[in-house]
Amino acid sequence: MSAEQEIREVIEGRAAAMTSGDARAVLAYYVPEWVQFSLAPPLKQRAESGDPGPLTAWLATFQAPPKREVTELEIHADANVAYATSIESMSATPVGGDEEFTLWYRVTVGLRRVDGRWLIAHEHQSVPFYMDGSFRASVDLQP
Amino acid sequence: MSAEQEIREVIEGRAAAMTSGDARAVLAYYVPEWVQFSLAPPLKQRAESGDPGPLTAWLATFQAPPKREVTELEIHADANVAYATSIESMSATPVGGDEEFTLWYRVTVGLRRVDGRWLIAHEHQSVPFYMDGSFRASVDLQP
Repeated sequence: MSAEQEIREVIEGRAAAMTSGDARAVLAYYVPEWVQFSLAPPLKQRAESGDPGPLTAWLATFQAPPKREVTELEIHADANVAYATSIESMSATPVGGDEEFTLWYRVTVGLRRVDGRWLIAHEHQSVPFYMDGSFRASVDLQP
Repeated sequence: MSAEQEIREVIEGRAAAMTSGDARAVLAYYVPEWVQFSLAPPLKQRAESGDPGPLTAWLATFQAPPKREVTELEIHADANVAYATSIESMSATPVGGDEEFTLWYRVTVGLRRVDGRWLIAHEHQSVPFYMDGSFRASVDLQP
């Protein structure tokens, strides 16, 4: 299998594990410690794949695990370092809410090949914001 | 010079060129065509380093070119593919405004080594947003 195929399986496998609500399976795609630029503050977080607590807690804020879509995936891989870009969505209904939302956002991941396996070593997820003076996050965009 | 040193010079050289207001010098750090996830919409843009028009127009919205700071730079490089992460700021006064703002944001870049030179081939810049129901962009965070 080519590096591109292996990395595609990592990105799509992570999304599928999220949709099945399995925090440990999601985190198995990551190196033990990585730098995360998340949709929510702070600017930067150090995350640990050995600790499913934060992800499990986040999943519990929805009535069911979010449905996920991965589109426009582009992969650039060398022997042991790669990065991938995509436009992804999550659809979910918050606990206590009665309406499902769908959020489209940009994803850039950095990957490293460790013992023959590609793992996510950095993750940057975001939406842009409107520079019209409102400083609203652009949560209504679609690809 | 190591790949890390060369890439550090790319990231810091780009910031310095921005502060000197030289759009062509900024774009000389990029491959001819790349995918950009910008602070402002849309979700995704194809940009061309041969066309300084959009960057020149953006620079003209400020009274002087933005001052820039690059912090917490981390670089992961293989022979020909690399990615780098940083927390950066820009400080500027909009045309027609009377107050300088400082914005801190996250940056992930993907780089490729082309004819022996490291060039930026992907750029993702963002701030997170508050998930308190306000959907406000987090433009007030500091590292």
